[in-house]
This record gives sequence, structure tokens and C-alpha cells, in this order.
Amino acid sequence: MDSGVEQLGLELLAQADRLAEFTEDPPRLTRTYLSAEHRAAGDYIASLMRAAGMHCGYDALGNLVGRYEGAHPDAPVVIIGSHMDSVRNAGRYDGLFGILSGIACVAELHRQRRRLPVAVEVVAFGDEEGVRFGVTLIGSKAMAGQFDPAWLAVRDAQGVSLAEALQAFGCDPQAWPGIDRRARPPLAYLESHIEQGPVLLNEGLPLGVVTAIAGAQRSIVTLAGLAGHAGTVPMGARQDALAAAAEMVLAIERIGNERSGLVATVGRLQVLPGAVNVIPQDVVFSIDVRSGLDSLRRAAIADIEAECDRIAARRRIALRREPLYLADAAPCHPLLQDCLAQAIAARGLAVRHLPSGAGHDAMVFPALAPSAMLFVRCGNGGISHHPDETLSAPDAGLATRVLLDALLRVPAAFGLSGAPA
Amino acid sequence: MDSGVEQLGLELLAQADRLAEFTEDPPRLTRTYLSAEHRAAGDYIASLMRAAGMHCGYDALGNLVGRYEGAHPDAPVVIIGSHMDSVRNAGRYDGLFGILSGIACVAELHRQRRRLPVAVEVVAFGDEEGVRFGVTLIGSKAMAGQFDPAWLAVRDAQGVSLAEALQAFGCDPQAWPGIDRRARPPLAYLESHIEQGPVLLNEGLPLGVVTAIAGAQRSIVTLAGLAGHAGTVPMGARQDALAAAAEMVLAIERIGNERSGLVATVGRLQVLPGAVNVIPQDVVFSIDVRSGLDSLRRAAIADIEAECDRIAARRRIALRREPLYLADAAPCHPLLQDCLAQAIAARGLAVRHLPSGAGHDAMVFPALAPSAMLFVRCGNGGISHHPDETLSAPDAGLATRVLLDALLRVPAAFGLSGAPA
Repeated sequence: MDSGVEQLGLELLAQADRLAEFTEDPPRLTRTYLSAEHRAAGDYIASLMRAAGMHCGYDALGNLVGRYEGAHPDAPVVIIGSHMDSVRNAGRYDGLFGILSGIACVAELHRQRRRLPVAVEVVAFGDEEGVRFGVTLIGSKAMAGQFDPAWLAVRDAQGVSLAEALQAFGCDPQAWPGIDRRARPPLAYLESHIEQGPVLLNEGLPLGVVTAIAGAQRSIVTLAGLAGHAGTVPMGARQDALAAAAEMVLAIERIGNERSGLVATVGRLQVLPGAVNVIPQDVVFSIDVRSGLDSLRRAAIADIEAECDRIAARRRIALRREPLYLADAAPCHPLLQDCLAQAIAARGLAVRHLPSGAGHDAMVFPALAPSAMLFVRCGNGGISHHPDETLSAPDAGLATRVLLDALLRVPAAFGLSGAPA
Repeated sequence: MDSGVEQLGLELLAQADRLAEFTEDPPRLTRTYLSAEHRAAGDYIASLMRAAGMHCGYDALGNLVGRYEGAHPDAPVVIIGSHMDSVRNAGRYDGLFGILSGIACVAELHRQRRRLPVAVEVVAFGDEEGVRFGVTLIGSKAMAGQFDPAWLAVRDAQGVSLAEALQAFGCDPQAWPGIDRRARPPLAYLESHIEQGPVLLNEGLPLGVVTAIAGAQRSIVTLAGLAGHAGTVPMGARQDALAAAAEMVLAIERIGNERSGLVATVGRLQVLPGAVNVIPQDVVFSIDVRSGLDSLRRAAIADIEAECDRIAARRRIALRREPLYLADAAPCHPLLQDCLAQAIAARGLAVRHLPSGAGHDAMVFPALAPSAMLFVRCGNGGISHHPDETLSAPDAGLATRVLLDALLRVPAAFGLSGAPA
């Protein structure tokens, strides 16, 4: 291991530790959109951006944007972004690492006094997780032209509207259209992020190239059977909604297992009346199916629905399903995947392509510009969105070196002169 | 159909309708132990007892005992009993029908001025359901010598102790030992009861002879898997506690299906954290297994435990089980079953023997005296413990005629002179 890489990683982890202090409920880490802690974290990040030779400022929605000019004033922009808000009781690397590693790339260019044929903007998005207002990816959606002004009226649990929270943060909510980059789209969007899963960890690889941010489809299934006395209704006369649900849960798991590149989960299941001595009458459960390939997801869902219908009919159980959420997969751009893959291979590492099962700011950008993601190994069994989330210093440093290498490959990949000024 | 039988049934249903008016939460029917409504219902029942030629009074625990003397002052006693308390939002026949049909038997003897070689006592037990103090079968247990004086200190939801409630009802709590019949056990205990299940209904039979009150064993199983992001943890890397529980639910159902004379139920199941996008980490579920044959129940439970252990081991899920409740089966006495069977056959009806999956006062008596139960067809799909509980007038009348016929057969079955005085 290159000792400079590890040293860089240690600096990044120290920055993440510092950022973890900006929390609404210490000792837990919670930082919601437009909170005082968001502002404090943003101001610290801004100091890092300035030290890396960037100008920076908050935009109309509280995104912090740092800019490192290219060799020419009219150079196209490559955005490196991720988010600085968190879930409740979060880990310290989800989102933040992508911002810090982006700044570290620019810091290295700045140290080398090197200008690229592209300007580099590092964006710390204010809202990705959606904890405060129940709307996710507000910052990235605004850049991609998907901001819905109706969101300004949405209120948090304390009754504060998004518009009011923006004003309190020092922003002009009505200036949101200025964030839209569709008139002059960036050349590319790059994001580095901890994997939030165990794939790289289990394979002993520090880095991976994301092929797509998985599409997801969620639905709620409601089963209605017939309650009865657990002692008096013979087995053959029962219409047990839980036994039916159990068969469905296993069918969903089997359909997920049979298809590589797909996951299927029943995360929620409730039984009514839920008494020890009463045969279950009603069950409500959720289905969450994700895949980087929309066709694979759709086929699996068709299989799941047909299988559940068969089970319900055989068991004389009424079945009703309601859609809950649908997002198609966001593919990562092949040329950018190649830039990342070449940068990984240049370090002598195996190149692992994998889909992202979780959502990220990068899922919004394909509509605006070619986008790609670099995954960094998540320690501790792949635990994320939790204080037990870990990232090693060597991996953090390596990911940042690879991200910079990939960034340097981007202009040529898109036909721009690769000669730095 | 004998029109006298239907007329008798109509009278019994009218009495049950009258009793349903003594409720704590009209229009629902709820009558808990030692409530004002218990007293009002008891006083109405006492009036029926007196009209049937019985002396009657409340004992130290609020049981109402009516006595119709036999041909000789020292004749042994046959008890006909059931309970007058109810679950919350109850049906009107569970328990009450057994009391009313017992009184109707005595009324018929009284009309005929007939004395038997046995005295007949009709007992309206004050507590069977256990709704108020969480202790079930208080009245019948006291007669069988199983009253625990510690129960006197148990308090209801309003903080009233059983002793205080008894005093308010007009009883002397310290006199409970006088209820114990072990020093002079009854010759037999008989109980008629609606089936609370669909077996007789589905077979088109009005009456059945109970073989045993099923033993029941309940336990709570806790599964601990590993939570994870529903999008990022591949199917093969999961330790999904709900998928494991689903396999167990189906194994329990299968083991119940494979064995005639046994039922197995998972009535309660809870999933944690229970979020749409999180792989289930913990599941808690209940198992309730019942059978009239203890050996059958024990073998099924051994199979269930072995199967659940196998499933847990294969899925790398930690499994913990805790016992919740255990009651062995209470067999009905063969000679008394024969008395009931002969009385049914004498009406030209098929004799159906079946176990009782639900608990009844009769489950306490085998320790004290030969006991038996007559089941009456429950209408409306076998629904009980619910306002939709129904009983037809012809069935009610027929059950009462058969109960009296069986009662008349009891002395000879136990070697007493059958000649009435």
C-alpha cells in the first residue's frame, strides 16, 4: 500500500469525524435538510473547498456548490457530487464521503496547479434522504429540472414549510429555477459512495464500478381470510391469512433467488387480530423488488403477482394489492464506467461491476448528463444507515486517487482535448 | 321435528335474549365476573331455578348453585354446569346455554313431580373466561379443590382486588374452602355447550359427544436474523428472519394437517424493524397446538421444534423459544359419553364423537368426578365469542331433551338404582 494513499484516507476520515459532530441529537448522528447542523456542516465543507482552490456558495435550495475553473472560461463542467444530509442515527460516510473525496481530487489538482479541459464542480446536496420533508433528492432533482414548486409548501413535522426553512437558511426559495442545468448540461456527473452493502467486502475488493442504480417497485398486499378459534376450527376448514402470506413470502424469496441481478424483499408484515388463540384473519405485507435491469424487475414482479394470486385462490383468501412506489433503473454511462474501470485497473485491481441497490443523487442525473458511480467497500458486514457503518483509511484514500484518475480520463472519453493547460 | 322440542328451544333462546340485556357495554354483550350485570343475570337465573323447583343461592365465590333434591336426602349429586360470564363483545349462548338447558331439564322433572336417585345441582359459574382478573375457571377450580387463595389479591384493571369485588358482590371471600367438593365428590358432571366451531355444522348434525377437552400447549418463538438494506444485500447473503418464520409457519401448518385430531396455529407474528426497505431482523411468533390426545400433541410439538431448529440452522437465524401455557387434555368419562350417545341415538340421530378444542368448565372436573360434555351445533360458520354466534331453536330444544335423557341414564350407568321415587 502506497503510504500516501493511506495518509490521504486518514485525512478524509478525520474530516468525516469532524462533520459527524454537526448533529441534531448527539451522540447519535442526525443531520436533516436546512437544519442549523446542515449549515454548520456546509460551512465546514466550504472551508475545505476554499482550501482546495475553489469558489463556493449555497444555491437557492441550500446545495453547497464549489467550483474549480477549467483551462478555459467556457470549459464544460464535470460535477462531482453527493449529499450532506443524513438519516436519523446515521453512519458518518454515507453521502459525506463522496463530497470529501471530490474536494480531495480538486485539492490535488490545485496542489499541482493543474487546470483541466473541464471545470470541476463539487456539489454537496442539501437533501437526498428526504427525512425532514418526505421528499427525496431535492437538490439533485432541481439541477436535473425535476423540482416541483409544490414542494415549497410541504411542511415538516414542526409545521415549517420548505419555503420558510429555506428563508431561515438564508436562501431565496423563488430562485429555484436558476439551479436547473438543462440549458447548459454538465459534461458528466460522477459520484463516489460507500457501497452500503456487503458485495465488495465479501469479495475482498476495495472498489467497484456501478452499472446502474437499481429501479425499485414497491407494493402493499392485503390478504383477507377468516378468523376462527385456534382450538375449534379443524385444519382443513381454515382460511388462514398468515399461512397464505407465509407461502407468498417464500415464493417472493425464491423468485429473487432464481434471478441474478435482482433482489426481492418482504420487509413489513402485520397480522390481525394477532392473538395467540385466534386464526389470523388479515395480513398486510410489503413487497420491494429492485434490479438494475427494468425488464428483469418487471418479469419478476409479474411472476410474483401470478404466484401470489395462485396461492390466494387455492387457499380461498381475498387478495388486494396497491402500488406504493415505482422508479425505473438509472443506468450509468458506459464511457464513464470505462473511465472508472481503467482507473481501477491501472492500480492493478480487479474491476468489479455491480448495480447499486440503494438510491443516490446519481440516479437523477442520467436525464441531464452522462453519470457514473464509484463504490467503495463498506466495512462491518456492509452495514450502513447506522452508527456501525465503517470505511477504512486505505480504501478511502484509494477511492479518491481512482476518482481523480477517472476524472482525468473523462475529457478524452468525450472527445475533448486531453491536454491540460 | 317434535313441535314441543322447538317450543322448548324458543323458550330457551328467549331466556338467552333476556340474559343478553345484562351487559356492561350495550349494544355489545360483555358481562365480567362480579360485575353488577353478573349479579343481575344471576338473579334472573335464580328466578328460573326457583320456578323449576330448586332452592338456590350464591356461594362464597359468586357461583350460583341451584339444587333439586333426589329421592333420598343422602342421594349423590349430579352437577350440570356452565358459566355466566362472557368475553368482551360476546355471543349470547356460550356458557349461558349450558345453564339454561340444565335448568330446563330440572323444570321438566319438576313438572313431572319426578325425583331421581340423585340430586341435581345446576351451577352457573361466575368466572370461566377470565376477562376481569386474568385467572380463568375460578368457580369450577374452587369446586375441584384447585382454588389458589393468592388469587384473592389479584387486581382488575381498575385496581379492585378479587377479595374486594367478592365483598362488594355480597360474598365472604374467606369462605372459599367451603366450595371444595373433594370431601364429597359429585357422582358426575355434565355440561352442554355450543360447539364454538364448524364441525357439527359442516356435517349436518345437531349434536355431538365430546371425547375430551383438548390439551393445549402455547409457546413464543423469537428469531434473530440480520437487518440489511433491501436494495443492497444480495439474496444469497441474507439472514432474513421473516423468510425463516414463513418456512416455520408452513411447517407448523403441515404438521397440523398431517395429524387428524390435532390443530396447530400461528396466531401472532411481529416483524422488526418492519420497514418496507429493510430486511427483517427479528420476528416473534406464537405457536398454539391442541389435541384431545396428549401423546399426539407432544409428538407434534417435538416435530415442530425439530423442524424449526432445522430451518433456523440452515438460514443462520438464532432461535429462542419460551413456554407460554400448558394444559393436558381433560378426557370425558366413557360411561357418561355412553349416556349421551345413547340419548342421541334414541332420537334416531347419528352419534358424532369429537374433541373440544376450546376450554370449558368441564376441563376442571375430571380431577373431581366423571365428566362429560354435549356439544350443540353452532350456526353461522361456527363463529363464537362474537355477536354473530347463533344457535337454532330446534337444536336448543333437542339438546335439552337429550341432556335430560342422558341425565336419567346416569344413575344406572354408575350402578345406582334407577327406580325413581
